[in-house]
Formats: sequence, structure tokens, C-alpha cells
Amino acid sequence: MISKNEAKYIQSLHAKKKRDAECVFVAEGDKVVREFLKEKFIPVKLFATENWLGENPGIQGKFVLPATEDELQNAGFLKTPNQVLAIFPQKKNTGISPKTGWILVLDAIQDPGNVGNMIRTADWFGLQYIIASYDTADVYNQKVVQASMGSLARVQVIYEDLENYLGNTGLPVYGAMLSGENIHSIPKQKEGILIIGNEGKGIHESLQKYITTRITIPKKGGAESLNAATAFAVIASHLFV
Amino acid sequence: MISKNEAKYIQSLHAKKKRDAECVFVAEGDKVVREFLKEKFIPVKLFATENWLGENPGIQGKFVLPATEDELQNAGFLKTPNQVLAIFPQKKNTGISPKTGWILVLDAIQDPGNVGNMIRTADWFGLQYIIASYDTADVYNQKVVQASMGSLARVQVIYEDLENYLGNTGLPVYGAMLSGENIHSIPKQKEGILIIGNEGKGIHESLQKYITTRITIPKKGGAESLNAATAFAVIASHLFV
Repeated sequence: MISKNEAKYIQSLHAKKKRDAECVFVAEGDKVVREFLKEKFIPVKLFATENWLGENPGIQGKFVLPATEDELQNAGFLKTPNQVLAIFPQKKNTGISPKTGWILVLDAIQDPGNVGNMIRTADWFGLQYIIASYDTADVYNQKVVQASMGSLARVQVIYEDLENYLGNTGLPVYGAMLSGENIHSIPKQKEGILIIGNEGKGIHESLQKYITTRITIPKKGGAESLNAATAFAVIASHLFV
Repeated sequence: MISKNEAKYIQSLHAKKKRDAECVFVAEGDKVVREFLKEKFIPVKLFATENWLGENPGIQGKFVLPATEDELQNAGFLKTPNQVLAIFPQKKNTGISPKTGWILVLDAIQDPGNVGNMIRTADWFGLQYIIASYDTADVYNQKVVQASMGSLARVQVIYEDLENYLGNTGLPVYGAMLSGENIHSIPKQKEGILIIGNEGKGIHESLQKYITTRITIPKKGGAESLNAATAFAVIASHLFV
């Protein structure tokens, strides 16, 4: 069972400060938890129904604790009935600044759902690294963890000063803008940096000098813009070899 | 000011039953409300700060009522401070079943954020119609309205029996699937129907017989799938002329 104290502790991990102090994060739901386990993340604690544990006989260890659906729902963040909740250690930032392949740069992406969705999309297109500005939503926010659908287990998100990062790269830098070269006329590239800017304001003025090619998804209808995560996916599918 | 009764009424519109009985929906925030006004939607009521009304002098009528930010936040669904909230009449379903151009078909899309995002993307790519199964999230759900960023004012969403609709079309039918033809090898098309299936289960078995071409976004990394709204955008950018 999940004790009152344990439930309180899980709830306290809603706050970034607490997560960072404890160096852990919460993942919920069969699909998401299994993805982290598959990628060799070892939980600090894993609460699951007897049913789930029966279906996953390989998951054993001191960290495994049986719980009821009600306990999981009360302790966790999900609104839907749930079978499993795990507390995992945060991945240590390796200090590696990626210099080859395709790298996604997030400039002040505010919406955790967007960040999670972009991690998932990056993983689909084979990206290993995302560089995020310090004012991008926290990667261990539970909405990011859930929206990433487990891809967070494979994609490394590194928070950095973007001016510093972009000023020291030898890669071509593409910026998603409302006015730029049509993505249909740009040939596929083996490597580069793609910057996606803030949902409301786009790419910060101070970063625009690092952009070597401004790219645009041609518009036919009335919408003023595309969702940031949507724009990333469309550009990735046209630009990445 | 927003009276207690008015605030209660706005909150009651959270429920689809109440929205449908009253034949209205709620839109919030400067950008979203202005898009509906621009498209000639006439509010039943519009609550706004003096500040917002000063910046939008053209918005006049009996339906306009001044309100404070606190009142707007208490009455509305948004978590962030807000300047304007409007109650609009629902668009009447015209009974038109679109037979030309590109049409998006949504099969049991559950997440209102996904539906709203797809309305926005459809509008960007110039689509006028979306056909949705009855078990797709309600288009007047406030999360759909907000995620559509005003594009709901231009795109018509029609709820229909999909078997009936797909069985009576002369258009080619494309289905987004995990195994199918590579989108990079399919030439752009002037018209057709594109089906996007449920987030977890994909396109319903009973609809698959209507698909003339199964299409796939090639995957390079570890993610099991793409978000439904993301997949729609990527396919649209490759397939739609």
C-alpha cells in the first residue's frame, strides 16, 4: 500500500525545487513506466497493482511495492485510473555538448505538453539531444514526462545558455520563422541545429544573429501560426536525412 | 462586473450537455476571442476589462459587459490572468457533407488538446471541413476552443457516422498507419480524405476497408508512435497540394 507519507512525498514532487533537491521524478502509467524500465532506469520506488505486477513478472526488487488503483490515483497526477507509478532518479547531465548530427534547440518553450511532445517527436526522428534554454519548461515536470510517452528515456535534454551554445557551434543553424525559405525548396541535410522559438513570441531577438537559414512552412489558410511542437515535426520530416 | 449567477452560468458551460442545451460555447483570451469576432461571430455576452475595451473600441453592443481580471479568472477556465471572455452561439451544422478538396476525418480522437491543435493545423493548410466520429472530443469543449487558437471560427467540424460518410464518398481515402506507404514516395494530391485514428488504438477496424492508401511517416528512432495531431500535420505538409 501507499502510506499517507508516501502519497504526500509523491505529491511534493510536483514542485521542481523538491524534484531537484531529491534528484528524482515521477512517471505514471503502464506505457510510460515500461519505457523507462526498458531503458535500464532503476526506480527508487515503484508502486503497482497486483494485476500489473502479475503481468510484469520481471520487475522485481526492494523498490517494488504493491498498491491499489485508488491509492495510485490519490497519490499520482493522472486523472484516469492507473496501474503503476514509479519514482526514478533524474539522469545526470553528462556535460557533453553535442557537436554532430541533428540537434533541436528549444528557446523558451513554456507549455510542458509541447516540450513532452517534442521529445517524443525528436525520438521518432532519431535525435539524441535537445538543448533547451533555462526558461524552457522543466523536463521532469510530470506533464512533460507523460507527453513524452517514454521517449524521455532515450533523448537527452540539456539546459544551456543558448547564446553560448550557438556561438560555439560549427553546424548550420536553421530557425523556424513565419517568414523564411519554403521548407519544400530546402534539400534534406545530414546535420544541423534547428531552433524552435517561444509559443507566443517566436525566436528571441538575441539568438537570430546565429541563424544561417530561416525556414517557413508555407501557409494556405487563415491560422496565424502553427503550434510549436507541430512546426518542429513538419520541419523535421522535410529537413532531416 | 460578473455577477455570481453569471459566473455560475459560465462554469456550468463546462458540461457538454449544458452547452448543447443552451447552444453556446465559451472562448477566452484576447487572441481567441478576437479571431471569433473577426469572423463575424456575435457574442451572446462578452466580459472584458476596461483596458481591453479601450484597446478594442470597435467592440460595442448590449452584449458587452465590463469586468475585472479577478472576476474573469474566477468565472473562466484559464489559469493565467485574462482580459476577455465571451459566450458565443454554436455554429449550426449546415448539413453539408463536403465532397471535394481535402477533408480530415477524425476517428475517436479523445484528447481535446489534440482536436484543437488539429483544427488549427487544418486551418493553416487551408482545410475547410473536418468530419469527426461521434466519440471524438466535443469541438466546443473549452480545451478544444483554446487549443484551436481561433481557427475554429473558420474550420467547420461535422460529427457524422464515419462508415456512412466513407461509404458514400468518391474521393481517395488515405489512412495514417504504422505500416503503409512512405509519405516521401507518395506524390502530392489535390483532394482526398485523410483519416487520423484514436491516440491509443489507431483507426478502427471497421473503417479500414474504406482506405485506398495506407500511409506512414518513416521512423528512425525509438518512439513507438507520433502524437495524433503531429502525425496529421506531417502528412498534410507532404500530401496536400
